[in-house]
Amino acid sequence: MRNIDGRAMGKAIGAEVTTAAAKLEAEGTSPTLAVVVPTNDEATAWYVRSIQRTAARVGVNCRIEQLSSPSVGELTAVLDRLSLDETVHGVICQTPLPEGATLAQVGEHIVPRKDVDGANPVSLGRLAAGMDTFAPATAAAVLEILKRENLDLSGKHVVVIGRSNVVGKPAALLLLAENATVTVCHSRTRDLAEVCARADVLVAAVGRAEMITGAHIKPGAVVVDVGTNPTDDGGLVGDVDADAIAERAGALTPVPGGVGPVTTMLLMRHTVDAAARQSG
Amino acid sequence: MRNIDGRAMGKAIGAEVTTAAAKLEAEGTSPTLAVVVPTNDEATAWYVRSIQRTAARVGVNCRIEQLSSPSVGELTAVLDRLSLDETVHGVICQTPLPEGATLAQVGEHIVPRKDVDGANPVSLGRLAAGMDTFAPATAAAVLEILKRENLDLSGKHVVVIGRSNVVGKPAALLLLAENATVTVCHSRTRDLAEVCARADVLVAAVGRAEMITGAHIKPGAVVVDVGTNPTDDGGLVGDVDADAIAERAGALTPVPGGVGPVTTMLLMRHTVDAAARQSG
Repeated sequence: MRNIDGRAMGKAIGAEVTTAAAKLEAEGTSPTLAVVVPTNDEATAWYVRSIQRTAARVGVNCRIEQLSSPSVGELTAVLDRLSLDETVHGVICQTPLPEGATLAQVGEHIVPRKDVDGANPVSLGRLAAGMDTFAPATAAAVLEILKRENLDLSGKHVVVIGRSNVVGKPAALLLLAENATVTVCHSRTRDLAEVCARADVLVAAVGRAEMITGAHIKPGAVVVDVGTNPTDDGGLVGDVDADAIAERAGALTPVPGGVGPVTTMLLMRHTVDAAARQSG
Repeated sequence: MRNIDGRAMGKAIGAEVTTAAAKLEAEGTSPTLAVVVPTNDEATAWYVRSIQRTAARVGVNCRIEQLSSPSVGELTAVLDRLSLDETVHGVICQTPLPEGATLAQVGEHIVPRKDVDGANPVSLGRLAAGMDTFAPATAAAVLEILKRENLDLSGKHVVVIGRSNVVGKPAALLLLAENATVTVCHSRTRDLAEVCARADVLVAAVGRAEMITGAHIKPGAVVVDVGTNPTDDGGLVGDVDADAIAERAGALTPVPGGVGPVTTMLLMRHTVDAAARQSG
């Protein structure tokens, strides 16, 4: 089994983004991403710092809007303000959200042209309808990785495990648009291993540490591991047990170093694209 | 194989809709559906007449806006006007559309609260995100039929053939929300019969006369035929060859008399629901 190097892919995309950001800067537009953080959660803070570092590297301004236990109304007011702020081109909102809020409700307060992480249901609808829009960065990363692997998805059977609005569903829609035959599995799926073992490409977005084993793998399959499960010692493991699938899978995106770096870099690409459109 | 009686289901739903429409009427609101017809196509005219008949039967006003070879701009102007017209509660647009127009583009001019056939990508996004919205009536009919068959979809494997924005994709999203494991197939799918033959429930929305045969059927499967293919003698056949699957399938919605009457009646239910919300 070959490891797919997400860090190298992230760097390659980063080089393109850096050029595009510098061009905008020279034309008088500073591409700017606003990151709304409605929580003091430490894992979130860690992820936000990694977004900041990536942004600095490619020349995207990153504005952090740290909120402390906001109400839903306070959070959506901030998103409404950023949606109107002409110096901001991309807006994302971190989780966990205030109690009682759903990402779809909150996402409706991010204007679609700045919705670089595809949180607004309008963006999801445009994606489903095959219109131009920003897909959630994680879902876009799944497709980006498969394309950079030169995989022709047409007619291939892809199984997506997970049906969230930010990964499973948009990834399935993107893969369908690439002419893959797509199956979406989830917690209620019967005989999960058997269904997965028919997949030419398996996308794991379950959120359960190392639950995908050899039994889930068709020999030679390409496996994209979207999972980021914290370990007791402060590390991170995916949804896939890399050792268990090593003898059957053809290739795997490792965790860390697979989907993550591509996702973060696609947020930057989306922000620069959004800035280019808004300044044009 | 048992035939699923769509006409009887349509009547049962119609009784509920009639009661709801009469209640609104007594409260001073006449539930009204505007049907925009941008074509002189005879098949479309036939379908529009069937909508009118159904509307009359349940007490919904049906206003036909017949256009003759409109430009895209003329068509969207009519939809914009109806979206603002307070005497209209539901708006649908028939196909074929003017050359160069897509249903998603045109659908954006139907305000979501009146989008009773789910043509606006916003409605599709809200559906995908699990929010309250009107699903396209045909996709909603697929689910309605399976529910009225008392089928527990949880964990069942459903295969949908077809990935249009008005049937395949929204049906897949609705079935996923019912906890089915969902596979979407299409023209590029390899080994279609083999994939279909694993389905507990098969939804055919291909648009090719009688292409589904015994080889596509798991013994006992419930088959929903969404196809409406015209025959040379002026009749209608589905995507499923009923004779060929008769010894394997458990049940089938016939064409005509299956999905069609339920779809038309759900348009009425959506219109009455829309009117109730807009008057409330």
